[in-house]
Amino acid sequence: MKPDEFIDYQALFSEIAIAVQTIDDIGAVASYIPELLEVDPNKFGIHLTTIDNQNYSFGDSNEKFSIQSISKVLALTLAFELEDENLWNRVGVEPSGTAFNSLVQLEYEKGIPRNPFINAGALVICDILVSRLKNPKHDFVEFVRMISANPNINYCSRIAESEKLTGFKNAALINLMKSYGNIENDIETVLDFYFNLCSLEMTCMELAHEFLFLAYGGVNPATDHKVVTAVRTKRINAIMQLCGFYDEAGEFSFKVGLPGKSGVGGGIIAIHPEKFSIAVWSPRLNKKGNSYKGMKVLEFITTRTKSSIF
Amino acid sequence: MKPDEFIDYQALFSEIAIAVQTIDDIGAVASYIPELLEVDPNKFGIHLTTIDNQNYSFGDSNEKFSIQSISKVLALTLAFELEDENLWNRVGVEPSGTAFNSLVQLEYEKGIPRNPFINAGALVICDILVSRLKNPKHDFVEFVRMISANPNINYCSRIAESEKLTGFKNAALINLMKSYGNIENDIETVLDFYFNLCSLEMTCMELAHEFLFLAYGGVNPATDHKVVTAVRTKRINAIMQLCGFYDEAGEFSFKVGLPGKSGVGGGIIAIHPEKFSIAVWSPRLNKKGNSYKGMKVLEFITTRTKSSIF
Amino acid sequence: MKPDEFIDYQALFSEIAIAVQTIDDIGAVASYIPELLEVDPNKFGIHLTTIDNQNYSFGDSNEKFSIQSISKVLALTLAFELEDENLWNRVGVEPSGTAFNSLVQLEYEKGIPRNPFINAGALVICDILVSRLKNPKHDFVEFVRMISANPNINYCSRIAESEKLTGFKNAALINLMKSYGNIENDIETVLDFYFNLCSLEMTCMELAHEFLFLAYGGVNPATDHKVVTAVRTKRINAIMQLCGFYDEAGEFSFKVGLPGKSGVGGGIIAIHPEKFSIAVWSPRLNKKGNSYKGMKVLEFITTRTKSSIF
Amino acid sequence: MKPDEFIDYQALFSEIAIAVQTIDDIGAVASYIPELLEVDPNKFGIHLTTIDNQNYSFGDSNEKFSIQSISKVLALTLAFELEDENLWNRVGVEPSGTAFNSLVQLEYEKGIPRNPFINAGALVICDILVSRLKNPKHDFVEFVRMISANPNINYCSRIAESEKLTGFKNAALINLMKSYGNIENDIETVLDFYFNLCSLEMTCMELAHEFLFLAYGGVNPATDHKVVTAVRTKRINAIMQLCGFYDEAGEFSFKVGLPGKSGVGGGIIAIHPEKFSIAVWSPRLNKKGNSYKGMKVLEFITTRTKSSIF
Repeated sequence: MKPDEFIDYQALFSEIAIAVQTIDDIGAVASYIPELLEVDPNKFGIHLTTIDNQNYSFGDSNEKFSIQSISKVLALTLAFELEDENLWNRVGVEPSGTAFNSLVQLEYEKGIPRNPFINAGALVICDILVSRLKNPKHDFVEFVRMISANPNINYCSRIAESEKLTGFKNAALINLMKSYGNIENDIETVLDFYFNLCSLEMTCMELAHEFLFLAYGGVNPATDHKVVTAVRTKRINAIMQLCGFYDEAGEFSFKVGLPGKSGVGGGIIAIHPEKFSIAVWSPRLNKKGNSYKGMKVLEFITTRTKSSIF
Repeated sequence: MKPDEFIDYQALFSEIAIAVQTIDDIGAVASYIPELLEVDPNKFGIHLTTIDNQNYSFGDSNEKFSIQSISKVLALTLAFELEDENLWNRVGVEPSGTAFNSLVQLEYEKGIPRNPFINAGALVICDILVSRLKNPKHDFVEFVRMISANPNINYCSRIAESEKLTGFKNAALINLMKSYGNIENDIETVLDFYFNLCSLEMTCMELAHEFLFLAYGGVNPATDHKVVTAVRTKRINAIMQLCGFYDEAGEFSFKVGLPGKSGVGGGIIAIHPEKFSIAVWSPRLNKKGNSYKGMKVLEFITTRTKSSIF
Repeated sequence: MKPDEFIDYQALFSEIAIAVQTIDDIGAVASYIPELLEVDPNKFGIHLTTIDNQNYSFGDSNEKFSIQSISKVLALTLAFELEDENLWNRVGVEPSGTAFNSLVQLEYEKGIPRNPFINAGALVICDILVSRLKNPKHDFVEFVRMISANPNINYCSRIAESEKLTGFKNAALINLMKSYGNIENDIETVLDFYFNLCSLEMTCMELAHEFLFLAYGGVNPATDHKVVTAVRTKRINAIMQLCGFYDEAGEFSFKVGLPGKSGVGGGIIAIHPEKFSIAVWSPRLNKKGNSYKGMKVLEFITTRTKSSIF
Repeated sequence: MKPDEFIDYQALFSEIAIAVQTIDDIGAVASYIPELLEVDPNKFGIHLTTIDNQNYSFGDSNEKFSIQSISKVLALTLAFELEDENLWNRVGVEPSGTAFNSLVQLEYEKGIPRNPFINAGALVICDILVSRLKNPKHDFVEFVRMISANPNINYCSRIAESEKLTGFKNAALINLMKSYGNIENDIETVLDFYFNLCSLEMTCMELAHEFLFLAYGGVNPATDHKVVTAVRTKRINAIMQLCGFYDEAGEFSFKVGLPGKSGVGGGIIAIHPEKFSIAVWSPRLNKKGNSYKGMKVLEFITTRTKSSIF
């Protein structure tokens, strides 16, 4: 009944290689950001890295993709360090219970978004970073690079521009919050920062390394760099567990049982505290906007390894 | 950064004894069920039991109280065993994102409640048990007793009657679901079963023992009785984590970091998988309907012992 | 630009006889009340009666049908007489802006229905009549008969029973309002009265005569019987104009331009103050639940006669 | 029971002069547009003009004020002429049933506003005018001037600028509609036109004359200039009746019984078809955003003259 003390990841990844073939991927690539449609929808990559630096890869795990909303976790991490508990005066920690960019709840709750991972909440986080950072875009990407000691991480300006041209719903959200006094900075500036944030690109391997600090009490075990305190680490993981998958957080907790975060680029990161981080990428999304195959594979892995946190 | 391998629970409970004094309890006893107002609002009890049968108590831990919604977890456990995955055709696993008995979402989602712990969802679970059990009230309490080998657990008919007289919102919920075809049985019968379910009484000690199977892969370690499979155990814990505290599930995950469930009688149960279960009772509730002092004490304990699952 | 002083109703009705043929009726008979499905969906009747007792009929105008929600206007009329302005403490006068039996708004507004013509509002009116009348069902039908000096008007118990068996949404509404303290009487009693109210049967001719008092300042011109004051007459007409057609009140005002009320039995009554009342019956309903052909014919008539009140 | 054929307006206005004194005005000036706070809140003016050119004034009836949302009726009139029935593909004719700039319903109904008088609907109308007019701001004010042959009507750029600085909720609305494809033009251009539209200034006398065409089948009786067809006139009046007072349209229909439109500057215009138009101005607003004293005075007048259309 206890989880196996020893997990044979090598054998597991061999099984995944086979399992992936059998999944009939009925998802569809996100269409609302034109540039994302350029990506080959059949890409599939996965990378797992343990806190003692074992690494397992499969498929297109060394190919860059747009991590999109996954970067909201990194923005939250930095804003939490800068604002401490004051952060929660401007954004909540509760699941949203509705689609990922609904205005209804925001209006009902007077401009305070339910959590930092719905678009409205991420926009508030961006507003905080724009206020706090001297050179927001530059400083933020430097923070991201430092976490995993990886200078090769960058924004994709083509993607950022593409989102800006169609981002009317985000513009509606930020204007609504500004009307309630929950946005300090100029709207164009915050939106520009937000669209760049979402355009960050990583490979599965880079993504897994980038998020390993959340499996190790806030410290990157590879570099001993302390990103956040242990207490904040737990809280970030808790928010991912409850709010990381839009209106499918319950489903993910139920079937995968790890804190995680998805992006419309088809990426998913998941964390097993004290054990590992795992990144998957498969562009076709299910109806709730999460990678169809990515969720299936993670369910396969955690069922196989009994590695749910529950 | 790792949790202490050894937790000195005895020292911890001595600290709790002091900490409890210092909490200025600003909560208020639930008023909508007249009988609950009879309870002394200053009661406080706590009991922790580990999977290797260590037991720690403090305060009024041997006094019976109305566990109310906490019993929804037990009803779910039995219904899950009886229906298997078919269960999820009639109730979801997503957080509700709104107050605990709101009709809005239910109407929007055509009579399918978001999860088994909001009132609507628990009513569907009750409908299933009424369909499946020969003698529902009798069979259910027998199931509850068997879990912890405790024949002293019982309904409180006075509380059940009191709820029935004021339960118009629950009657609205079940009628609405019946209009959508998601209730099979006679409404009065299901409501009667539901109000009895919520009237179950336990002491903190009994409650902790009753729920220990969720910390031990579905098996009661004291009796080796297998209540549910390990997979279902994880899923029940996951649902508690995401939906166990009405519109405060995020707050509880964030601050306490354990799967748990509260009741308007002032009780809370929380589970640390592979380690312990802990029951707290303090009747005054915060604005979201969860025990004010109970949440504070659990936050104190998990911060102290670093025992969050995240 | 002025409406014609003289309207040649006879010629008009000849035209209607032709126009009715050309309407391709794409509506569907209400299916949620089983008994209503028994009615021949191709029935069509119309009757116009002027305040100086000219009468014009066409089609099945002497056949009884279930007037359903149209009777809510009569219930309001009596409750307004009995309660005077106190009535408006328990029900509003604003359009509902959503489907006709939505619970959302009711919950948002703490159990006060938006107006007396949505189901929730009519249930409050019924609760008032149950409180005020000695023998509610008997006294109410006597009031209805007296208005048009017509002893042949009656309930249809078959229809009332049919609705009772499927009326779970109405049961949800009344329970919700009772939870907010806006229902005084026993729920079963009020629902029984409500379902009987909705089961009233009239022919088009009877219906037009019954409502003529609203075109003549509250007095039935045929009998000189004063039903309500002139001020209340205007107010009842105003509420019909704004709330008489569920979520299509705007469309009806826009195209027909008269105060009116529809029922799911396919009937519509409309009033031209100082001129006439007109009743139409055609069972097939449009998507908003109003008689498809009935609305078309009334639009034809008011366009032809320029008899909009606007 | 019939309305008096002859109304002694002179006597009526003498009575009004007295009645106005006795009203305890508990309203508050609109605060969200800073410039509106500059206005003396105790101003009161009223002007009635009949279709046969009788004129009755009282108080500050020759002082210009910001007519705000009242100008939405004029924008609708022009857009209706330009688009004909196609207009209704982009905006509805139903009452909104919620506060005047709520995003909820707009999101629920996929970017189609409920009617042309809520802010969202007026923004769609503005988008149409921006598409259709060569020089929108200039052409529109020329249209307004032509209606009443009054070259002295103008925008107030100070007010328009003031609104622009705080108009985040309108920016949210228009971005949301653009995300649904219901806005054709550049957002900044449409908002600029909208804020100018709302900044139009008139005196009560000018306002009554400007709207007299709606009491005379679409023709200004003073100049014989045909503004719109008789059919459209009725439809515009119908929309005013159902949607002219935000969430208080029922109350206004109920108590005043005339089609009308209010603005947050404290102005109200009301129309008695075939008889007169009447403009009132009193800056203090009730909780629904309509002139407190203005509504009281209009209720007094229509009760006195029995001039409800119902």
